[in-house]
Amino acid sequence: MGLEKRVYLDWAAASPLLPEAKAAMQPFWSESFGNPGSVHEEGRKAKEAVYNARKKIAGSLQVRPEMVTFVGSGTEANNLSIMGVIEFHKEKKSIPYSEMEIISTKIEHPSVIKVLVSLNKKGVKIKWAKVNKKGKIDLNDLKNIISNKTVLLTTSLVNSEIGVIQEVSAIKKIINKTNPDIIIHADAAQAPLWLNCQLEAVKADIMTFDAGKFCGPKAVGFLVRNKKVNLLPIFYGGKQETGLRPGTENVAGIVGTAEAFMWAQSVDKNKQRRESVSKVRDLAIDYMNEKLPGAVLNGPIGDDRVANNINISLPNVDTEFAVIVLDKAGFAVSTKSACSGADSGNSYVVKEITGDTTIASSTLRITLGINTTYADLKKMTDILCRHLDKMRQFT
Amino acid sequence: MGLEKRVYLDWAAASPLLPEAKAAMQPFWSESFGNPGSVHEEGRKAKEAVYNARKKIAGSLQVRPEMVTFVGSGTEANNLSIMGVIEFHKEKKSIPYSEMEIISTKIEHPSVIKVLVSLNKKGVKIKWAKVNKKGKIDLNDLKNIISNKTVLLTTSLVNSEIGVIQEVSAIKKIINKTNPDIIIHADAAQAPLWLNCQLEAVKADIMTFDAGKFCGPKAVGFLVRNKKVNLLPIFYGGKQETGLRPGTENVAGIVGTAEAFMWAQSVDKNKQRRESVSKVRDLAIDYMNEKLPGAVLNGPIGDDRVANNINISLPNVDTEFAVIVLDKAGFAVSTKSACSGADSGNSYVVKEITGDTTIASSTLRITLGINTTYADLKKMTDILCRHLDKMRQFT
Repeated sequence: MGLEKRVYLDWAAASPLLPEAKAAMQPFWSESFGNPGSVHEEGRKAKEAVYNARKKIAGSLQVRPEMVTFVGSGTEANNLSIMGVIEFHKEKKSIPYSEMEIISTKIEHPSVIKVLVSLNKKGVKIKWAKVNKKGKIDLNDLKNIISNKTVLLTTSLVNSEIGVIQEVSAIKKIINKTNPDIIIHADAAQAPLWLNCQLEAVKADIMTFDAGKFCGPKAVGFLVRNKKVNLLPIFYGGKQETGLRPGTENVAGIVGTAEAFMWAQSVDKNKQRRESVSKVRDLAIDYMNEKLPGAVLNGPIGDDRVANNINISLPNVDTEFAVIVLDKAGFAVSTKSACSGADSGNSYVVKEITGDTTIASSTLRITLGINTTYADLKKMTDILCRHLDKMRQFT
Repeated sequence: MGLEKRVYLDWAAASPLLPEAKAAMQPFWSESFGNPGSVHEEGRKAKEAVYNARKKIAGSLQVRPEMVTFVGSGTEANNLSIMGVIEFHKEKKSIPYSEMEIISTKIEHPSVIKVLVSLNKKGVKIKWAKVNKKGKIDLNDLKNIISNKTVLLTTSLVNSEIGVIQEVSAIKKIINKTNPDIIIHADAAQAPLWLNCQLEAVKADIMTFDAGKFCGPKAVGFLVRNKKVNLLPIFYGGKQETGLRPGTENVAGIVGTAEAFMWAQSVDKNKQRRESVSKVRDLAIDYMNEKLPGAVLNGPIGDDRVANNINISLPNVDTEFAVIVLDKAGFAVSTKSACSGADSGNSYVVKEITGDTTIASSTLRITLGINTTYADLKKMTDILCRHLDKMRQFT
């Protein structure tokens, strides 16, 4: 350990900061360190840097700069999107909580599910749309649960555990036919490196991002919305971010975020990355199927799956131990989402799609990076295979 | 401009990142970039870095590590402290909003005042303690407004505009005699470079900090509390920060914050800084009194005032224009708090203590750095003096 090259296969949990982003952040630590709220030169430089970052992201996503709101994490972006919409409806449209409904699924990230639980305690009804065995929202079921009380539909664009890509445009068509007032929120935390995230392409009204997942700095998130979406803030203070998110702006972090996002969303690079990494993913899945008898792939195959996600279950195998064994051998993988905690137990996502506790309690999530090779994944699979053989000898 | 050396005198708004903090952050961008929630080596390194940072701060403030909670800004720390206490009382002690009272003052930062306004809308009664003409809480008045419904008293330790230091220990004595259950929150955003911030020394139950104000990185805040204080989170997601603040930890930012905080709170350096800078401050105040006839010092003099704060009013002078003139001459100062916005108008803090609109609308806040010299402040005063002479010619 330490001597061998590490193979990091947990890109859904965290990604390394892009060198260009790190370089772009550099002047804003000890030189141009002003507060963007100050009127003097130091303040104006900081304000300009934040504005330019906002303009870059807005340009890339084809929205107006004021439609980009920087916050402190992907988690906060999800909270602000969901609570912000509901509070706006309550305060500004005088709709009581009990007259509002939100549609979501049971396979969302904790930063969505737990917000919904908290709103439910206040009286908002949460309707859980069915997902099929691959994790895709059941569009027929969706039609039936939309009502005239539905205010918001919130779904991940890419699921953080099983990599399923939701067809938001198909959801949008249904909403247009049933209740066009519904706001669609897409949690795009896992998307920027692999998919075009333009609001108009995805057909969402509000999308949320986490810089730490696309080679930007940790602890910067942002949301992007169209003019259909009005929000209220979730905490209070200064008038930063058009009053939606108080507190001195994270100047360096925002600058680094814009740099990384432009690189992540660059049309050519995004496509090339998607194509090359999904090829490696599919070869690796085939190899795993061959070498790991009994292994089950969780989530869809092909284009419905994000390029860098492999999630397999090894029924009756202690995969938490397997993660430790692989770690010692130089491979960083996980069992599920880091935000679901290191506590043992089922993946609630895989339990929901399979209904099978044995499968849900033996997951391995392998999320590829931009330079992960098939050789890396083959080697990892071989080590896993030998480990399973050894375990079998004991039973 | 650009050729001359700039003199930055807005340390209450933002401070440069300490080189040692910047260096300590370095490994956590592109090398040890793991998610502290992951079990593999990359994750454990990140977790360890966050834990060590927490332990350093806890050691410095003499609390247990789990009593330190990292958040995304000083603003968020204030929100979590105030809303967190009130929500805990509501949810876990079943006390309705209408049965709770909070005591504060009208000279607090927007990240306190606006939280109080939002809680008031929910039914919590806010009692505004009187402050005297220097900004100090009137302890006799305080005695009279404490009731058995009072849950929380929230005050700045150091006011961000006028630099007045509140005597929290005297407040604590009154609370002990009247209603010892009251939790004392001290917003210490402006304190770490100049004052000992140990909970036990200050006599607060919960204190909040903003790294960007003590030469740490922007967008990291933290709160420190004793075991009297229970909180509920203000937004939802993963179980990070013992469930009080969800979202992937800002590893680099937290590491840099601890480094800067240890330096800021180092007993020797803190004392030396306080003594040398307050000496410069007092000489400069004398020089301003001599050179700027009609100038009024807002806030107290001597030990009741934080070492680095000068706040003067120049009645009937357009001080927003003066800020611009000084900026062009190389001096960065402000009229009021950056979080109060660049919008023109009164300083509500100075209006509250003086009751005088002319004084409140002509403030200049000059906040010294650790190396600000008397010569710098003399030069600034001379330029201001010439500017005022020139203005007088036109009227």
